[in-house]
Amino acid sequence: MKRRDILNIGMVGLGKMGLNLALNLTSNGISVTGYDLNESSTALAKEKGLEIAANIHELVQSLPQPRILWVMVPAGEATKNVVEELGAELDKADMVVDGGNSFYEDSIANYRILKEKGIYFFDCGTSGGMEGALSGGNFMIGGDEAAFKQLEPVFEKIAQPGGYLYTGKIGSGHYLKMVHNGIEYGMMQAIGEGFDLLAHSPYTYQNDKVAALWNNGSVIRSWLMELAAEAFADDPRLEGIKGTMYSSGEGQWTVEEALKRKVPVPVIATSLMMRYRSLEEDTFTGKVVASLRKGFGGHEVKK
Amino acid sequence: MKRRDILNIGMVGLGKMGLNLALNLTSNGISVTGYDLNESSTALAKEKGLEIAANIHELVQSLPQPRILWVMVPAGEATKNVVEELGAELDKADMVVDGGNSFYEDSIANYRILKEKGIYFFDCGTSGGMEGALSGGNFMIGGDEAAFKQLEPVFEKIAQPGGYLYTGKIGSGHYLKMVHNGIEYGMMQAIGEGFDLLAHSPYTYQNDKVAALWNNGSVIRSWLMELAAEAFADDPRLEGIKGTMYSSGEGQWTVEEALKRKVPVPVIATSLMMRYRSLEEDTFTGKVVASLRKGFGGHEVKK
Amino acid sequence: MKRRDILNIGMVGLGKMGLNLALNLTSNGISVTGYDLNESSTALAKEKGLEIAANIHELVQSLPQPRILWVMVPAGEATKNVVEELGAELDKADMVVDGGNSFYEDSIANYRILKEKGIYFFDCGTSGGMEGALSGGNFMIGGDEAAFKQLEPVFEKIAQPGGYLYTGKIGSGHYLKMVHNGIEYGMMQAIGEGFDLLAHSPYTYQNDKVAALWNNGSVIRSWLMELAAEAFADDPRLEGIKGTMYSSGEGQWTVEEALKRKVPVPVIATSLMMRYRSLEEDTFTGKVVASLRKGFGGHEVKK
Amino acid sequence: MKRRDILNIGMVGLGKMGLNLALNLTSNGISVTGYDLNESSTALAKEKGLEIAANIHELVQSLPQPRILWVMVPAGEATKNVVEELGAELDKADMVVDGGNSFYEDSIANYRILKEKGIYFFDCGTSGGMEGALSGGNFMIGGDEAAFKQLEPVFEKIAQPGGYLYTGKIGSGHYLKMVHNGIEYGMMQAIGEGFDLLAHSPYTYQNDKVAALWNNGSVIRSWLMELAAEAFADDPRLEGIKGTMYSSGEGQWTVEEALKRKVPVPVIATSLMMRYRSLEEDTFTGKVVASLRKGFGGHEVKK
Repeated sequence: MKRRDILNIGMVGLGKMGLNLALNLTSNGISVTGYDLNESSTALAKEKGLEIAANIHELVQSLPQPRILWVMVPAGEATKNVVEELGAELDKADMVVDGGNSFYEDSIANYRILKEKGIYFFDCGTSGGMEGALSGGNFMIGGDEAAFKQLEPVFEKIAQPGGYLYTGKIGSGHYLKMVHNGIEYGMMQAIGEGFDLLAHSPYTYQNDKVAALWNNGSVIRSWLMELAAEAFADDPRLEGIKGTMYSSGEGQWTVEEALKRKVPVPVIATSLMMRYRSLEEDTFTGKVVASLRKGFGGHEVKK
Repeated sequence: MKRRDILNIGMVGLGKMGLNLALNLTSNGISVTGYDLNESSTALAKEKGLEIAANIHELVQSLPQPRILWVMVPAGEATKNVVEELGAELDKADMVVDGGNSFYEDSIANYRILKEKGIYFFDCGTSGGMEGALSGGNFMIGGDEAAFKQLEPVFEKIAQPGGYLYTGKIGSGHYLKMVHNGIEYGMMQAIGEGFDLLAHSPYTYQNDKVAALWNNGSVIRSWLMELAAEAFADDPRLEGIKGTMYSSGEGQWTVEEALKRKVPVPVIATSLMMRYRSLEEDTFTGKVVASLRKGFGGHEVKK
Repeated sequence: MKRRDILNIGMVGLGKMGLNLALNLTSNGISVTGYDLNESSTALAKEKGLEIAANIHELVQSLPQPRILWVMVPAGEATKNVVEELGAELDKADMVVDGGNSFYEDSIANYRILKEKGIYFFDCGTSGGMEGALSGGNFMIGGDEAAFKQLEPVFEKIAQPGGYLYTGKIGSGHYLKMVHNGIEYGMMQAIGEGFDLLAHSPYTYQNDKVAALWNNGSVIRSWLMELAAEAFADDPRLEGIKGTMYSSGEGQWTVEEALKRKVPVPVIATSLMMRYRSLEEDTFTGKVVASLRKGFGGHEVKK
Repeated sequence: MKRRDILNIGMVGLGKMGLNLALNLTSNGISVTGYDLNESSTALAKEKGLEIAANIHELVQSLPQPRILWVMVPAGEATKNVVEELGAELDKADMVVDGGNSFYEDSIANYRILKEKGIYFFDCGTSGGMEGALSGGNFMIGGDEAAFKQLEPVFEKIAQPGGYLYTGKIGSGHYLKMVHNGIEYGMMQAIGEGFDLLAHSPYTYQNDKVAALWNNGSVIRSWLMELAAEAFADDPRLEGIKGTMYSSGEGQWTVEEALKRKVPVPVIATSLMMRYRSLEEDTFTGKVVASLRKGFGGHEVKK
């Protein structure tokens, strides 16, 4: 396939990430038409100057062939539905990029659905957060290599320098993003534990200054530590928020995948367990242990 | 040393464990004089028929030589103080048994203090809970072996059949008890986690029946599971108590000792971590992680 | 359904567990005809006095209606195949018990296959090891309750007193066994870590005596500790075996199920991770960490 | 105290870190006289152009008052000995900086020894590795604040911009460095686990390209990931090294400190446990678990 100029992309999903990516694309000379079910997302996108299609059919029709469609909707059912709808609308040689946090096996399934119709499907793990989406993201892309060459100019434009990688056959992009997030869970928990210990230490540290210090030449300097410095600058003791640690699936998949391959990932697994623990006010495990201690030793229990 | 009949023991500390042990001793033909700083403990012991001494001096004077003193007071300072006081009152060839949950290095120190005066000191780890103390306990005893032979008839009487062991030189009894408790932490946490998962399962299990079942021939039958069955029989969902898991030191010492020896004890350590986690309503770790997630992904935080 | 005398059972699978169960049944007055693909298993069973059928068809034909078939073959494909074959041979009101370690969702699927034909299917988690299978096992059984009443006399005979429980609708038996094994993983790892620390302690303990002691009245007395005492009696330092910890699936399912339900099971998960770790001589994780340490600090690496 | 120009520093310890720091100082206009017990270190330092003193007495005498001595020797005994020797040689108002990885309580003790003589002592945690020491390190410094102001110009010169912080009273610098290393353990283990999973994945990733990618805009970009990229560039599968993960104490102290404060640090603790695990070919824990599995289920063991 010959490399060609890419001038138009259709974006399905205009949430936080989809909108920022669309703006990134347009500021790099690629015209974007967007579509989202959600009216307020659509309204915001219009305000930001995007063309909006009324539905997927219209979106597809608005694009020159071979078309490029970028899907940025929640993983699972929503992505699957969009892929199926696109399958019904697109033509041979069109391209679909799933830039969401899909499970890699779902991406393989989606690839197969579209492949039957000659449509290319790429699984694209996206990192770098909202800021990256807007001004230089990090992308790991799986799918057919020859077809990827055609798509590559898009990533050259919207990624950080050095910030995209063709990772191999279908599924490899989302697999890599999954593992990236598993690592992220462990790093975040480690950082959190460190500051928790500081907060209980015999010294009085200023968290924002500590995080800022560590970002200037220490071994643990990292983007996460920069974000910590920003968060502490806003609220040094984080008094405004609760320590509830939600998770959106990739950490769980990482552990499930590790279980399947019998790879020990104790730190990633423990990070995930602590997230689950944080969702509960109290635990039944704790009640059982407390009642056993009372049972044999008459130890105090909290009512 | 020739084995001799032991007819009298002085008991320092008449709390839950000390009183039960004293009653165990008396019901086995050994006369016990007790002492406790706490008046209500003393009153209860009197009610149960024990002789009570007004102070340690009087307690020591009431006993025939060579005397046997059993110390059953909180580990650390309290035990050390009693040992020092006894050192000032006792004579050569007298014997002191520390039946509490002392740290083994403290026991070595206490042994040395008394040894200078020719007084024997034994570190005696005690398991079996209050019930065991009363009607057949489990004892692991370190100290001078020849002297232990003299003391052995006491353990023959108050232990479960097979329920005592001379473990070697000083410190080995409390060391073994420490590790016993480390194992206990892991077992309890595992049992707790299992019932926690059952409580979140798609099925409706009756916890008391499950625990009772498992005690009749399953691989995980155990005293702890029997205690679980009793606790669930009283309160099937343990609604009356909170899941706060206190700890009294041995688990922490086990992990510290493992760190010192570079022995991996990830399950015992994790059990301890979950106990500490249960002491807090919320964690600073969680706040940090939540703020980082918000920082890069704009993810929701709980206020 | 009226309770009736059960005089004959067909046993599919005559491995360690199936044969012992068959002998347990026959010694309790229930005649067993067995079948196994494996010739040496069949030969051993014959030697022990069991009737052997040449194939499943013959096995089914040999039994009076309503028939009871007990399946004791490896979980997964093997069990599924047997269930399907039985489905083709059995008649309405016949009963199939899957006594193996099947995944509970597989059992639900197998139940549905047979239900369509009016055949009853029970998922029966079996604990107690080989010894229990032979002389008094531990069973947790899910399936239709009314039909279970008919089957109950079998369990009254082959279980330990109090050693069986009807656990509810289909899948609940294998689910409970799965969680039982999860708890078992945690308990075993905790016991192992304790003895590992003892082996690195400054004292010289006799493991068999320690384990035996702990079984006489300590808080951690348990069947697993009894097995430890036996193992240490044979080989006090376990020098004859390697520390490779295989696993057969239930621990993994327990963690996967916990992930799905967002229930924190850090100790069970960590136990599983340590099993996986034991399967490897060296880890890539370790290589990465060692190379990072070298990278920033010039720290020594092992070649 | 008035801020003054610092023109001379005495460096005790000319190993990897000490030498690099000395070169950093000299290239910033501060003249350094060095001392080391080790002859090859001394020879190398001479070659690099440093003045070398024959002993500590000579070193101290060579410096103008008030003197500044930087100690960069192994933590523990070695540091204590140097501090005591310096205490005997130095005069009131002289300053000692311990830039090593000392335990914070040792630093408090060293501070007290010198304070009695009117000598200032600072505990200075140093991060940034050898490269940082040479060309811009990361420093966290505790001690008397007014005296620190005098010392500050040194850190302005040898630290990365923003790379030093006065952390408060004595001990706070090494405490913070300890926690920094605890976080580092967790981050490194998480990164290792991620690449371990990739190595067992169904895809073929090029580790160096993955690490490089992640450093360009991903959420987990970090110095450690840069070091990973370099290590993989040299040896993509790290085949030249073993996965033995040594540790030099700070991680252990972090966990011990957390235990003391009852702060849950499960990920840092688990990272440490995996380091210890990597030091052993086989584990006694594993042998116990394997023997128990054999005991109840007749499961295979590896001889």
